[in-house]
Amino acid sequence: MAQQHHEMTGTGTGPGGDAGELLAAHLQAQATEFLRALRVHRESTTDAQGAEEALEAARALRRAARRIGATLHTFRPLLDPEWATSLRPELAWLSGTLAQEHAYATRLDRLLDSLHRLSGQPPVPPPAVETAVGSRSAGRNGWAQPPVQGAHTEAGTPRGLAVGAAKAAALLERQLTLARTRAHSTALQAFGSSRFHAVADNVAVLASEVPLRGTGEDLKPLAAQAESDLTEAVSALPLGQAGHPYNAGALVHGLASDTAPDAQDAPWLKVRSLLRLHRYAQEVLLGHAGQDPRITEASHALNVHREAAAAAAAAAHAARTPRIAPATAYALGVLHADQRHEVEAARFAFQQAWLHEAVSTR
Amino acid sequence: MAQQHHEMTGTGTGPGGDAGELLAAHLQAQATEFLRALRVHRESTTDAQGAEEALEAARALRRAARRIGATLHTFRPLLDPEWATSLRPELAWLSGTLAQEHAYATRLDRLLDSLHRLSGQPPVPPPAVETAVGSRSAGRNGWAQPPVQGAHTEAGTPRGLAVGAAKAAALLERQLTLARTRAHSTALQAFGSSRFHAVADNVAVLASEVPLRGTGEDLKPLAAQAESDLTEAVSALPLGQAGHPYNAGALVHGLASDTAPDAQDAPWLKVRSLLRLHRYAQEVLLGHAGQDPRITEASHALNVHREAAAAAAAAAHAARTPRIAPATAYALGVLHADQRHEVEAARFAFQQAWLHEAVSTR
Repeated sequence: MAQQHHEMTGTGTGPGGDAGELLAAHLQAQATEFLRALRVHRESTTDAQGAEEALEAARALRRAARRIGATLHTFRPLLDPEWATSLRPELAWLSGTLAQEHAYATRLDRLLDSLHRLSGQPPVPPPAVETAVGSRSAGRNGWAQPPVQGAHTEAGTPRGLAVGAAKAAALLERQLTLARTRAHSTALQAFGSSRFHAVADNVAVLASEVPLRGTGEDLKPLAAQAESDLTEAVSALPLGQAGHPYNAGALVHGLASDTAPDAQDAPWLKVRSLLRLHRYAQEVLLGHAGQDPRITEASHALNVHREAAAAAAAAAHAARTPRIAPATAYALGVLHADQRHEVEAARFAFQQAWLHEAVSTR
Repeated sequence: MAQQHHEMTGTGTGPGGDAGELLAAHLQAQATEFLRALRVHRESTTDAQGAEEALEAARALRRAARRIGATLHTFRPLLDPEWATSLRPELAWLSGTLAQEHAYATRLDRLLDSLHRLSGQPPVPPPAVETAVGSRSAGRNGWAQPPVQGAHTEAGTPRGLAVGAAKAAALLERQLTLARTRAHSTALQAFGSSRFHAVADNVAVLASEVPLRGTGEDLKPLAAQAESDLTEAVSALPLGQAGHPYNAGALVHGLASDTAPDAQDAPWLKVRSLLRLHRYAQEVLLGHAGQDPRITEASHALNVHREAAAAAAAAAHAARTPRIAPATAYALGVLHADQRHEVEAARFAFQQAWLHEAVSTR
């Protein structure tokens, strides 16, 4: 870092100019929010209210970490490059680690909701359970009846299918709760690690002094680059197919192998990341007021895409559990296809939102 | 019949008038076509070319039987009522019996095509096989590899899913080929039965003399009644939901019980029947030239609806075969959901066709 130190300036104290001031103000605000969330999270108790607070604090922490990381990436030429390059992956590690527990809880909720819809049984809201990070409960799967034993022998009766759904729900709950518990432990370990403390220290420095680099560059061309990266990635998507409802594209090769959907999902996940970078760059320029509702809609569609794809993969994974009853495997197959159709629906929703934007604002 | 005989007139010989003449000409043409197809069917050999001829003849026979039956129903007031009332169910029995073998063959083709699409293996066209009624072959399921034994133990490998698809294909082929063979025997028995000969005799009489009734009624109000019955049934359909792509309506309660889809499919099947009556009534009035392409499109959508619903039910039925491997059951679950989505897609296609018609021609 030494050879670049002579280029660095303090916050708003010189050659950074207006662009530097705006960037510094944004990074300081996000860093302050990060530190506030971290304090709330540390101080939150383990009773029900405290767990709720901790959950919200962890979300705020992740949100700030994502925005700082994205800003370091998009506006890198205005910042000390070595510092930006070294901090960004650490922020990504942190937000990724903290996101896991929440992701497993969301995935389980999504799969159980789908099973309830498929089996016509109303979901019972799970009771609140205290956890340190404050994630949702998975103590009950919300079925009015506990999973019935012996689904295989009952599979010939009209109740066979519903029994399969209940057993699939119990299996998914077991597997995803275990994964969530592990993610919870990992998050707790992360909070106590020296790696985390190094990130927190870096963010604390950022809150008082942003390492700007006086290059005279403006924010707008850099934000425009983020947008053009996004547009280029979108142009590689099969939007023609996506805009044609019921094209069955998301299920193609769904029975070929476990990893078959990854290849077709990858370009959509890439667009999701680039859309996020674009959105955060716009926030730096315009603040939250500048949010385009169509970009919000497109982002939402790609979030659903990611969640449904992960849920479909979890159902396929559960189906390969040894010694499950055929009725359970059948229900998991229906569930997998249902979630892949949600993936397809999300692509359609993205196409609609994107086309709408392209037609009305360009 | 005696009390009504005094009201009857011969073809075009009196009080029937223009309406009667048009109706009689249509019925005579269909009866002639029925008899021609029957003769071709009887004369067709059992070699490959003959089987193809027999298949086409059986189709033509069914087509004529459906049109005669529909005409008897829609224009009943212009015909000897007792005669029309007694002949119609016999024609329905005949066309229903002859349709079964073809329906099982079509269903198997649809399910194997879907499995090939889902597993990414190109379907191999089945070799032609000679049958008396000339239906398609089911001697091979078109998989490049024969079904692998031991899918359960291999289910943890990447090939587990593809193995499940291959075993599901083999299971469906076995079950639907058995059903088709039985339907073939039933059709052969029907062709040789006194019940069939009575129908054929009735149709032979119809070809020379249509039992008209001189009521002075016109065809148009009766055709309009068929159209209004159709419109009323369509208004009971959930077209708002159907027009919203990816509404997931066709899979609701898909895991509740085996018969759950029947209730939601029933109104669509009813519209399909009424649309057919409307179409055939238009043929009497306008001939084939008068066919509205949007009605053709709507009919096609409802045919797909019926076939996909039956295929989905066959997959669910196969999944309840005792002692199948979980990988097979999983593949059948994915297949079931895929076909229920085809049902949903068909509803969307119908809604689009119907709305298009309503907007542009009313």
